[in-house]
Amino acid sequence: MVRKIVVIGSGAAGLTAASAAKRRDPEADVKVFTEDEYIAYSPCVIPWVLEGKLTWKDIVMHDTSFYTRERGIDIRTGTKVTAVDGTSKTVTADGTAYEYDALVVATGGSVFRPPITGVDLKNVFVVRTIGNGKEIEKAMKGSEKVVIAGAGVIGLEMALSMRHRGKDVTVIEMFDQVIPRIADKDIAEHVQRYLESFGIKFVLNEPMSSVCGDAEVKWVTAGNKKYECDMLILATGVRANLEIPRMLGLDIGKLGGVVVSNKMQPYRDGKLVDDVFVAGDVVQCESAVGTGPTMSQLGSTAVKQGLVAGKNAAGADAVSGAVASPWVTVIGDVHVAGTGLSENLAAQYGLKVVSGKAEGFTRARYYPGGKRMTVKILADADTHVMIGAQLIAGEDATGRIDWITEAIIQGTKAEDFLAHAENAYCPPTSMVRDVVISAVDDLCNNLKR
Amino acid sequence: MVRKIVVIGSGAAGLTAASAAKRRDPEADVKVFTEDEYIAYSPCVIPWVLEGKLTWKDIVMHDTSFYTRERGIDIRTGTKVTAVDGTSKTVTADGTAYEYDALVVATGGSVFRPPITGVDLKNVFVVRTIGNGKEIEKAMKGSEKVVIAGAGVIGLEMALSMRHRGKDVTVIEMFDQVIPRIADKDIAEHVQRYLESFGIKFVLNEPMSSVCGDAEVKWVTAGNKKYECDMLILATGVRANLEIPRMLGLDIGKLGGVVVSNKMQPYRDGKLVDDVFVAGDVVQCESAVGTGPTMSQLGSTAVKQGLVAGKNAAGADAVSGAVASPWVTVIGDVHVAGTGLSENLAAQYGLKVVSGKAEGFTRARYYPGGKRMTVKILADADTHVMIGAQLIAGEDATGRIDWITEAIIQGTKAEDFLAHAENAYCPPTSMVRDVVISAVDDLCNNLKR
Repeated sequence: MVRKIVVIGSGAAGLTAASAAKRRDPEADVKVFTEDEYIAYSPCVIPWVLEGKLTWKDIVMHDTSFYTRERGIDIRTGTKVTAVDGTSKTVTADGTAYEYDALVVATGGSVFRPPITGVDLKNVFVVRTIGNGKEIEKAMKGSEKVVIAGAGVIGLEMALSMRHRGKDVTVIEMFDQVIPRIADKDIAEHVQRYLESFGIKFVLNEPMSSVCGDAEVKWVTAGNKKYECDMLILATGVRANLEIPRMLGLDIGKLGGVVVSNKMQPYRDGKLVDDVFVAGDVVQCESAVGTGPTMSQLGSTAVKQGLVAGKNAAGADAVSGAVASPWVTVIGDVHVAGTGLSENLAAQYGLKVVSGKAEGFTRARYYPGGKRMTVKILADADTHVMIGAQLIAGEDATGRIDWITEAIIQGTKAEDFLAHAENAYCPPTSMVRDVVISAVDDLCNNLKR
Repeated sequence: MVRKIVVIGSGAAGLTAASAAKRRDPEADVKVFTEDEYIAYSPCVIPWVLEGKLTWKDIVMHDTSFYTRERGIDIRTGTKVTAVDGTSKTVTADGTAYEYDALVVATGGSVFRPPITGVDLKNVFVVRTIGNGKEIEKAMKGSEKVVIAGAGVIGLEMALSMRHRGKDVTVIEMFDQVIPRIADKDIAEHVQRYLESFGIKFVLNEPMSSVCGDAEVKWVTAGNKKYECDMLILATGVRANLEIPRMLGLDIGKLGGVVVSNKMQPYRDGKLVDDVFVAGDVVQCESAVGTGPTMSQLGSTAVKQGLVAGKNAAGADAVSGAVASPWVTVIGDVHVAGTGLSENLAAQYGLKVVSGKAEGFTRARYYPGGKRMTVKILADADTHVMIGAQLIAGEDATGRIDWITEAIIQGTKAEDFLAHAENAYCPPTSMVRDVVISAVDDLCNNLKR
């Protein structure tokens, strides 16, 4: 009998799950329902498209006919799932009920809209879909002053993109630093100063308190000050889309995501649900640093979980481990990356943290074209286990943060890392002792104190 | 009482040890004896200097007065140690006997000269010191045809350097592939084809059998064929310099290096020697993949071991773990890297190997400027533990090979890596699922067969 697999959502988790399921069981009937118009693109690239480095056409890798033709997957775009019934195992869309043997819920998240007046005015945008991006692009033509609410990674990427397009840009952030949740203040200040060098303005320590205008946004307020703008971009974080999970009665965790097992199966009243798999931004999963649940909400995590959800929906027994959630962004000429806990997050969990830091270069000190690199590594003061890191470099941050992530996921003590870690060396690509190892050396010295 | 520390050798291991010892015990009397004229440079960069990308001046980071002034270390260049007495604990140089409390032996290695006639002719060179490099530079002026004996990493770097300087270049290698010891044939062929695209010629599967000429080299022979040249560069591997270790009666291992503990202490008749530490190319150390002793002979390993030797010579209790010996080179626009065992090395140890491979890009598929990347990962067919990897990419190979190295050192099974590994993602710096993880996915599929 043909296995019927239904996927709800066409983001990184949903499409990956659909392809993985079909690869695992080529006979399966795989259907994807999505409200989106475009599929198979990375929302993370939108700031660069708006900056003009790529076109919308560049970033859409496939259309639905590709999936039908090449992978035998039936994708229904612009289609809202109106009902899901976990007992009869049906998904209803466009008035038709479709049966499933296995259901993958990959409904993703939506940008959080602060509960203040005016956020529904014209020229107030979020950055989530190509549709959002095209709206922003259209509005940019008549826009001079842009306010970005939220100084997280997306907010900063959008700020520089708009600045590069000649706009007057102000970023408003309620916390006292940029990238407040996942970066430490010393690293964040470095990034902020760099963005200020392009003429971007920052208002920190003040939440945006109102959005004003008649039909269109004219100004926002923060800390009793008024900031004029003709465009407001909300980069205020992402919340899980829980409508479908709630229809299924799935357990929602304290962080607002669907609780899942390492096989990406959800729970109902504390019991595993066998025929449903959940992946991506809608999920709350375990942290690899042992601090309980976390919302990863990264494209890379969505793909990793989507693969496991898709394979398992097609009868496999794959697992996806706890996450350290490494991230990287490129701000102008600077790569900024991190993994695991920041000092702020560690403090929230009541962890006492010791850090180490080193500065150096991405190539041998004397080799032409090398860029500065700063690495900061955090360890639990009690156990000495490495729990987080951040890195700023003019190039090649990504592989290095993945390297540290591997050590963090394996629960490595700083002293053990120092004893065993090795780096490949060639003058055009690294220092003879990589800055990552020097940072851990500093960390070990600080742990001794 | 002031601790007297003597270091023999001023390469990466020796100078690192001297500095580490002084940092650990600022009161110590630290002396370095070296036959070299120049110190504090990376021999690895010589091919790029000869190509014209840097000058000799660029690559010498410090002179002896820097070490005296800034670090309080007394360095005697151009000074041969003529005797070492482990009983009276003295080192003799320039006719004077210097007492030591702790001795660091970092005598490095020398290029192996094949035992054939003619290798002592004029215009036959090795690439090991700045002195060697300057000799080559001088001879290049009148040279048109260059033969490189040995297609290892140094041989290939020199081949491309000479080719970029307009020479007719032929590489002769006794094995049937380039980078024969540490790269697999499929990866090596890729590198060879790329070098051939510059016009470099290869003679494989034939050892160089004679070097001919009157005073100067005129041709070499290999497989009964004659290859004309006015310069011959021997890139025929490095052998440990054992003169000093033999004076001390230290145990020499079966691979021809000094056997050491993880504290970099040598043995005499199987017993640990307390007051001597050995580091760098002269050392035989344990392999992280559990196959017994290995000769790492990398600059990065020398620094790692030198740090531990230096700290311990000054009374610390540091350790240096077993090594996977990650390496990287840049050949034209291509970064080639590896770690752990190759298929050839694994076969020598009688290991049955399964491999996985993936191709992709260094950035998101659609992002401008991304380069191709191929990753191959090897696992032990019985245990599924990852034991080696190789990577070719147009950029950013180094951090990624360090990442895989960390997993290999920790003895990670392929399936466990696939379940837990995460990569940071941003369209300008990586694919949403890094090629490294895709390669391990392929490996896991192949292990199931």
